[in-house]
Amino acid sequence: MSLNTAAIYKDLWTIRQNSPLVHNITNYVVMNSTANALLALGASPVMAHAEQEVEDMVNIAAALVINIGTLSDAWIKSMFKAAKKAKEKGIPIILDPVGVGATPYRTDTTRDLIREVAPTIIRGNGSEIMALSQAGVSTKGVDSTSESGLAIESARDLNVVFNSVVCVTGETDYILAGDEVLTVKNGHYLMPRVTGLGCTSSALCGAFAAVNQNSHQAAAHAMAVMGIAGEMAAKEAKGPGTLQLHFLDALFLMSEKDIEDYLKV
Amino acid sequence: MSLNTAAIYKDLWTIRQNSPLVHNITNYVVMNSTANALLALGASPVMAHAEQEVEDMVNIAAALVINIGTLSDAWIKSMFKAAKKAKEKGIPIILDPVGVGATPYRTDTTRDLIREVAPTIIRGNGSEIMALSQAGVSTKGVDSTSESGLAIESARDLNVVFNSVVCVTGETDYILAGDEVLTVKNGHYLMPRVTGLGCTSSALCGAFAAVNQNSHQAAAHAMAVMGIAGEMAAKEAKGPGTLQLHFLDALFLMSEKDIEDYLKV
Amino acid sequence: MSLNTAAIYKDLWTIRQNSPLVHNITNYVVMNSTANALLALGASPVMAHAEQEVEDMVNIAAALVINIGTLSDAWIKSMFKAAKKAKEKGIPIILDPVGVGATPYRTDTTRDLIREVAPTIIRGNGSEIMALSQAGVSTKGVDSTSESGLAIESARDLNVVFNSVVCVTGETDYILAGDEVLTVKNGHYLMPRVTGLGCTSSALCGAFAAVNQNSHQAAAHAMAVMGIAGEMAAKEAKGPGTLQLHFLDALFLMSEKDIEDYLKV
Repeated sequence: MSLNTAAIYKDLWTIRQNSPLVHNITNYVVMNSTANALLALGASPVMAHAEQEVEDMVNIAAALVINIGTLSDAWIKSMFKAAKKAKEKGIPIILDPVGVGATPYRTDTTRDLIREVAPTIIRGNGSEIMALSQAGVSTKGVDSTSESGLAIESARDLNVVFNSVVCVTGETDYILAGDEVLTVKNGHYLMPRVTGLGCTSSALCGAFAAVNQNSHQAAAHAMAVMGIAGEMAAKEAKGPGTLQLHFLDALFLMSEKDIEDYLKV
Repeated sequence: MSLNTAAIYKDLWTIRQNSPLVHNITNYVVMNSTANALLALGASPVMAHAEQEVEDMVNIAAALVINIGTLSDAWIKSMFKAAKKAKEKGIPIILDPVGVGATPYRTDTTRDLIREVAPTIIRGNGSEIMALSQAGVSTKGVDSTSESGLAIESARDLNVVFNSVVCVTGETDYILAGDEVLTVKNGHYLMPRVTGLGCTSSALCGAFAAVNQNSHQAAAHAMAVMGIAGEMAAKEAKGPGTLQLHFLDALFLMSEKDIEDYLKV
Repeated sequence: MSLNTAAIYKDLWTIRQNSPLVHNITNYVVMNSTANALLALGASPVMAHAEQEVEDMVNIAAALVINIGTLSDAWIKSMFKAAKKAKEKGIPIILDPVGVGATPYRTDTTRDLIREVAPTIIRGNGSEIMALSQAGVSTKGVDSTSESGLAIESARDLNVVFNSVVCVTGETDYILAGDEVLTVKNGHYLMPRVTGLGCTSSALCGAFAAVNQNSHQAAAHAMAVMGIAGEMAAKEAKGPGTLQLHFLDALFLMSEKDIEDYLKV
């Protein structure tokens, strides 16, 4: 399997046609930018976190995105409730373990969540993915000395135990499922200077997984569209401020030709 | 009564002169964009939701805007407390029933709020307004087969029972009070691709109602200024990202001449 | 002591080199824009508010910024916990008393916080600083009839009792410590029309105090960079919407030459 323009554009086109409802339980910092990115892409975002309504919201959603960026006990309860309902209903669950490893509270919560619901897709940067696999999952020896190599090993561990597609994002994005690793080399150095673009890429996984049952492909397509939109935006931007607006425009305007011109795998 | 440039501009000018304090208890997704829109318009926004301070904040405010976009029990308590205080004090209460109908939690909360405080203005899209009137309010037969027709019937029901001005926003905005329906046909197809512009229009109702005791007019003026700002912004924008910034600039820059040139009723 | 380009740029350069982690417990309205400003500047922002993790987060942070813009009891508990830990660890604590004076809840919380942890830097506008000193701190006669004069007196009171550097921001920013008052005259009239730029300037104090042990200088450098970025942005902007994006670009692009060209003390 490899990434190709036609398959990516087909998913993008389907999102624009069907506007899948993506339910986000996400952090306060990025709620606005995440909603805007999903809207620009063509999906329908909803944010809801109250224990009293998360199951009802999952019930009408096509994907659930859980992001632990600003945790609290009440939200954790809702994340578990929503994730269980999503599992039951069979819609994709995307997990973004923001800052996992920084505090035991984040690490414990995330590991518990993974054990309980085995997310369809887990997306994080290298250090987050490594922090996730360091316990509860046995590391089977590390055959690489590079950091991305270590992260890929951790991703493999998570995949073996929980069967989750794992995206390790960075200069090159590695999207792993079973023995297959897809890579996406798109992106721009200004992107990490905008808050929440990692969170956005997880939300985009939700939209793509809502329209493509092959979640390995869906995740890789999401990463490709992220990186391409970032590069398109960088052509118009002078810094991280203007970048974030042109990024939304690029998600909205992206054509099949743009994907063909920009895609680097 | 009909909409005219001079009356709209008079309200806008008064907002810019007096900077009325608009107290918002609103959802996490749009707090930033709502505050920015009110500031660009010339009003003074404040966001406060703690039970311990909402009454004190209402006490110094000129309008209260309640938006149920990301509910939780603690916030609901504060919404009721603030709304009762606003009622007592006699300042306008604007209700935005975001996503009502999607979950019983939203629907029940919103209906209870309406019954308890009979908001000055209720603003929602057609499906939200219809969800509101489907219970607790008797629907007196529907004389229209179009969705906007149904929504206007629902608006009429709400108005009859609670005496609230009801704005049904969409391609054409219908602003209803008693037997009178004002229409605003301004706006741009990119606007629904920016998160929270509906919420912004409710917040703008707060600013206009703070300076114009005729709440039917105030609501219609707010809708006109929203739509015109959106059209002005669209001239500068390439997509939904750049649109939202130019929208804020347009609120700030809008002249009487702009209103005259753009207004479509 | 006076402000000079080389010293300001040295701090800016150090922030860009070291990316100090700035832990923010801040209000919902500005979380996104604060994080973006810190990233554009070159620092690493983190937002975390749960009682269960604030101490762990302080433990890896280089500065703590507390902003009371949208208080609630659970957050207040976390603010105290985080501030005590920061004191213990010896990292700078910056306090932004947003809207203090508007409600007793805000005033009481802020005064308690100041008494308990004596922040390294307190930053507010004139009326906020005056509201802070009106109780708990004795005002020793006021030798000025202007509002900024009164605010400077209040700042002096706070400094005498708590040894905090106090920034009173406005058209001219006054940064006071002991008998020394530094002034910054940069800034642009559009800046107060963008929500949260005051909060941003407090967050920038956190980044500068993380790399400069002289907290009086650090606070003044932060105010200078804020004002200069605002003026640079205003050259590209048509209103408050476009201003906020160009402001982030300016934080990212600011050179030593820019500081030299723009600095007004």
